[in-house]
Amino acid sequence: MQKAPILLATRLSPMIEAQWQENLQAIMPEENILSLNQIQDRRGIEIALVANPPSGVLGDFPDLKWIQSLWAGVENLLTDKTLPKIPICRLIDPDLAQAMAETVTAAVMAFHRDFDLYQSQQQQKLWRQHPPVSTRERSVTILGFGEMGHVSAAMLASLGFSVHGWSRSPKNLQDITCYHGDEGLRRSVDQANILVNLLPLTEQTRAILNRDIFQFLAPDACLINFGRGAHLVEADLLDYIEQDKIRHAFLDVFAQEPLPTEHPFWSHPKITVFPHIAATTNPVSASKVIAQNIHHYRQTGVIPVSCNRVLGY
Amino acid sequence: MQKAPILLATRLSPMIEAQWQENLQAIMPEENILSLNQIQDRRGIEIALVANPPSGVLGDFPDLKWIQSLWAGVENLLTDKTLPKIPICRLIDPDLAQAMAETVTAAVMAFHRDFDLYQSQQQQKLWRQHPPVSTRERSVTILGFGEMGHVSAAMLASLGFSVHGWSRSPKNLQDITCYHGDEGLRRSVDQANILVNLLPLTEQTRAILNRDIFQFLAPDACLINFGRGAHLVEADLLDYIEQDKIRHAFLDVFAQEPLPTEHPFWSHPKITVFPHIAATTNPVSASKVIAQNIHHYRQTGVIPVSCNRVLGY
Repeated sequence: MQKAPILLATRLSPMIEAQWQENLQAIMPEENILSLNQIQDRRGIEIALVANPPSGVLGDFPDLKWIQSLWAGVENLLTDKTLPKIPICRLIDPDLAQAMAETVTAAVMAFHRDFDLYQSQQQQKLWRQHPPVSTRERSVTILGFGEMGHVSAAMLASLGFSVHGWSRSPKNLQDITCYHGDEGLRRSVDQANILVNLLPLTEQTRAILNRDIFQFLAPDACLINFGRGAHLVEADLLDYIEQDKIRHAFLDVFAQEPLPTEHPFWSHPKITVFPHIAATTNPVSASKVIAQNIHHYRQTGVIPVSCNRVLGY
Repeated sequence: MQKAPILLATRLSPMIEAQWQENLQAIMPEENILSLNQIQDRRGIEIALVANPPSGVLGDFPDLKWIQSLWAGVENLLTDKTLPKIPICRLIDPDLAQAMAETVTAAVMAFHRDFDLYQSQQQQKLWRQHPPVSTRERSVTILGFGEMGHVSAAMLASLGFSVHGWSRSPKNLQDITCYHGDEGLRRSVDQANILVNLLPLTEQTRAILNRDIFQFLAPDACLINFGRGAHLVEADLLDYIEQDKIRHAFLDVFAQEPLPTEHPFWSHPKITVFPHIAATTNPVSASKVIAQNIHHYRQTGVIPVSCNRVLGY
């Protein structure tokens, strides 16, 4: 009997979906990767590869066994009530964690060497030096200690920063002070100069970046939100910036994306807006990870480690 | 016989000179550090600590044996014809090399993660993603391989960049491709994505950053000039930026400092202007280095390793 094809279901642009299809097909010549409109017989299809899939369609595949996300963030999949209740695997790609760590490091270093202050001075043609601070004297706290948090923390620690981390469950890492739980959150943020959010979006972490946390930061702090837009209470951030308690924010994710042109973040001199680029999935490296998952499943029948619907990631 | 005092001669602001005097005196309680206007008897003074010293005054100290610069750059001292022909020591401070490496890394990472492109897009409220590039695919060339070049190159190599270096004399360093000589200069710059200048200013390196070098850079390259303003041919840089061959320049040093308000660099969207902050001498760490030099001289009579007037640094 011939093996059934694998479904590719996304709402990406046709060009980008075609690029994914090409990369996935190239690395899995033994499989038949078909997009939704290329599939005639839905029976027998066991695997769906998805990125923001059209609502409701996956329920029409009677033999679907598991879903592989092309992205690391799966909060939309886990809350989509039209999806069948089968395992969902999120993308865990070392190259993605490396890309995130580089963007985190770029933002941390830019703030550390006062690039935000000098950019504002350049607009005023103002020549004024600020006293240098060593990396040892900069306390960086990373919220979220999965693959991305680990690689980011290690990169910052290698540059000499004093790195602290907070996660849901206890962690033990070299050179990094780890906290967990509600009380640990407050302690991890206490007197931080730079706060980096890399948490997954769950009911527990929604709106976690608010004034209750900001109040513990050191003066003239920096906020880096590379998690999800819904982690941030925007009004609290604007308030803390107005009061000069937060000196600068680097934001890559927003409640609505693309960020609407009328949004005040676009023109705020103390906010850097990135168009969700901190860790862009690279179809080449991601396809390798996905091919390994599929190959292992075809050989053993074992579905790869999947998300925990209670934890939300 | 009582030991003669040590002269501190600068044209720094009175507040900053007083800070130096306090730091130096605190770490050398056995010495008497006096500024120019505090000295009555000039005989017997053997050591002068200088930063941009008033012209002509050092010639009036008949027993002066050597001069210690408070700065790393000594090109003004070496070309000052009013100075007595005695050894000049430049400041070699590990903390200074670390500060330089951090600023180099901050600028390289900002360019690497396209912060310049996203800054320009933010001004237009434009949401557009650029494909990520790995550090392995970025070739960084560092001109000048003294203490600052070494520490900068090691930091960039640890982040995965492909690092090349060029210096006057042959060097051999782990993970870094080293070039020297005129032919080596061309080869070191060939297809570089990011060119970092940390050379000392000498007759051989003046105007070294010009179109003859720029022509070898990769498309959309980045220039980082943290050496001296006189290294750069400004018209050639502006021309290459206009032609979109150089995508962005980070400049910390200028022919005239402070950079005059009418200078076109201030308002150029593809040039970042820093007010000579890449490696600011920290009086605390620098005073320790200077105290070691003086202590060794008092004990042994040996003048510390000094600059080579022929080489110019």
